[in-house]
Amino acid sequence: MGGRALVQWEQNRNNAPSSLHVDVYAGGSAPATGLEDVAFYQVPYAPSTQGVDERYDLLSRLPSLEVVQLVSAGYEHVLPLVPDHVTLCNGRGLHDASTAEHALGLILAAQRDLPRWALDQKEHRWGSVPLRSLADSRVVIVGYGSIGQAIERRLVPFETDVVRVAGRARPDEGVHGIGELHGLLPDADIVVLVTPLTEQTRGLFGAAEFALLSDDALVVNVGRGPVLDTDALLAQNGRVRAALDVTDPEPLPVEHPLWDQPGVYLTPHVAGGSAAFYPRARAFIDDQLARWAAGAPLANVVRPGR
Amino acid sequence: MGGRALVQWEQNRNNAPSSLHVDVYAGGSAPATGLEDVAFYQVPYAPSTQGVDERYDLLSRLPSLEVVQLVSAGYEHVLPLVPDHVTLCNGRGLHDASTAEHALGLILAAQRDLPRWALDQKEHRWGSVPLRSLADSRVVIVGYGSIGQAIERRLVPFETDVVRVAGRARPDEGVHGIGELHGLLPDADIVVLVTPLTEQTRGLFGAAEFALLSDDALVVNVGRGPVLDTDALLAQNGRVRAALDVTDPEPLPVEHPLWDQPGVYLTPHVAGGSAAFYPRARAFIDDQLARWAAGAPLANVVRPGR
Ligand SMILES: NC(=O)c1ccc[n+]([C@@H]2O[C@H](COP(=O)([O-])OP(=O)(O)OC[C@H]3O[C@@H](n4cnc5c(N)ncnc54)[C@H](OP(=O)(O)O)[C@@H]3O)[C@@H](O)[C@H]2O)c1
Ligand SMILES: NC(=O)c1ccc[n+]([C@@H]2O[C@H](COP(=O)([O-])OP(=O)(O)OC[C@H]3O[C@@H](n4cnc5c(N)ncnc54)[C@H](OP(=O)(O)O)[C@@H]3O)[C@@H](O)[C@H]2O)c1
Repeated sequence: MGGRALVQWEQNRNNAPSSLHVDVYAGGSAPATGLEDVAFYQVPYAPSTQGVDERYDLLSRLPSLEVVQLVSAGYEHVLPLVPDHVTLCNGRGLHDASTAEHALGLILAAQRDLPRWALDQKEHRWGSVPLRSLADSRVVIVGYGSIGQAIERRLVPFETDVVRVAGRARPDEGVHGIGELHGLLPDADIVVLVTPLTEQTRGLFGAAEFALLSDDALVVNVGRGPVLDTDALLAQNGRVRAALDVTDPEPLPVEHPLWDQPGVYLTPHVAGGSAAFYPRARAFIDDQLARWAAGAPLANVVRPGR
Repeated sequence: MGGRALVQWEQNRNNAPSSLHVDVYAGGSAPATGLEDVAFYQVPYAPSTQGVDERYDLLSRLPSLEVVQLVSAGYEHVLPLVPDHVTLCNGRGLHDASTAEHALGLILAAQRDLPRWALDQKEHRWGSVPLRSLADSRVVIVGYGSIGQAIERRLVPFETDVVRVAGRARPDEGVHGIGELHGLLPDADIVVLVTPLTEQTRGLFGAAEFALLSDDALVVNVGRGPVLDTDALLAQNGRVRAALDVTDPEPLPVEHPLWDQPGVYLTPHVAGGSAAFYPRARAFIDDQLARWAAGAPLANVVRPGR
């Protein structure tokens, strides 16, 4: 505190407490001057950027840095770049509405054959067939965190039965631990994966888990690609369906077999960054800067500086 | 009562009160014998049948008929075929879960560009772009009946603002009358049409209504095709978007311009007949036969026999 803050949006500069010196950096070339004073750095949001990225290079050029603020929920990619003495905060909550509604979109697309109708429309084909429903489905949410709970709220009025799974069981809240997953899969119609990528979640859903699912079950992944074992999905060859916003590898190479896998529906990592994200993110950064200026505890600390 | 009942599903024959004589007729050729005793006729459900239909021909061959039971919500097509002394009952409520979830599927497909991703997948293209959201949208539901209310329940947790419109205003329930529609359209992000087809609703949404919508607004129709004026939609040329499960004409001829209209997304009248419909319909027919056997008032009477 006392130093400068770099933020992405004009609104946050304009709304900041007058005690703060706030500059706007929206990505691209680093600011030419003043880097030595930057104590609070909100890494600009750029949906699914690939390759070299000046936003992250900057992290090694800020000697006064105290706080790194992400507006993404995932932070596994930034952890190794943030010095130990710096506090890392993420965007937990800011993508809930956006990601949860995309998860529902993927579920309904799969149950209602929406990709098929899009292709039929292109060919001018009117071919009604009876469809699956979401109603009466049992949906297992693996990762009952901020987004998982937002998905549950949206699922309930669809007359579904939601089963909650997190890292550790919380029996008082009806949350199963991940160790109970195998017992839950045979009765699942739909499984939604929405965990962070960690060493525990990498490959969490693989051949053993697919084998426990009934024919025509649906696996949705809106978390991180490597949580689902791509080879195990390919080996299903359409027996179990999948709707994925995140893949492994990502982006999916043009010759990858997943593109044409029967029963697999893909969107290109667009769940979290829709229009709903921006007003929520700007409001959060306003609040966070106010907390920082007041010396109050920051929100969404995922790794305190030591 | 006392006469025979024709029903579509074995379950309903098996569960019927023993005082009733119940036969199964699932469509196709009419039963060869016993038509003269049929007093209760549940017209078999066949999603979007076209052309000559023996299910309806049968209506003129049942001299003892007292009750015609549809399992569809729409009944405008059957009204002229049912003699005045016969009571007509519809399937109000049986399609709510199915149709409402399809409406949400269409809304999310349009907001989340799902048709685009389906076409991109076919071409192996990974092309993220920022998307619209459903969150923060104002959704005007035109037809706040059984299905309209089911759509509202599903919309609310998506952080939307729902506006209710029915034939007549019901101010105590926050329901606007259709006469107020024009005042509501300029602030609408999404309009959902889910009314029956009547002389009042035919062409209800036309050039004047489109003109009041802001650019990029979305019109969804899960009611009946002719409620929306197709020519008025075509004249929008993409300024306003549309997602339609029902069209006028229907089925859409192969050379019709609507297929390739920018911003228009079509499904072939599949909203109501998904898997969720069947258990609800069978449970309803069980109850209705029990009421009929007991001489109790029937449910879902849309035109009493005189
Ligand atoms: N597709 C997209 O565009 C998009 C957008 C936003 C976020 N995401 C991804 O979604 C993830 C979740 O975000 P969030 O905000 O909901 O995170 P969160 O609030 O931290 O919740 C994470 C949940 O995952 C659970 N979890 C952790 N390890 C687990 C394991 N081994 N097995 C089962 N559950 C486990 C946690 O369980 P405990 O409660 O027991 O710790 C917690 O319930 C993010 O990390 C990000 O990778 C993707
Ligand atoms: N796409 C599909 O597969 C599918 C499936 C099922 C049903 N549908 C269609 O959906 C329709 C609605 O079904 P439902 O069960 O919800 O019917 P419902 O319960 O009878 O409700 C109909 C609603 O429409 C309103 N309405 C009538 N005339 C109107 C007008 N001129 N302007 C505005 N609102 C008007 C009624 O208003 P009041 O309350 O003031 O009378 C009522 O709120 C059915 O008739 C059928 O055509 C389509």
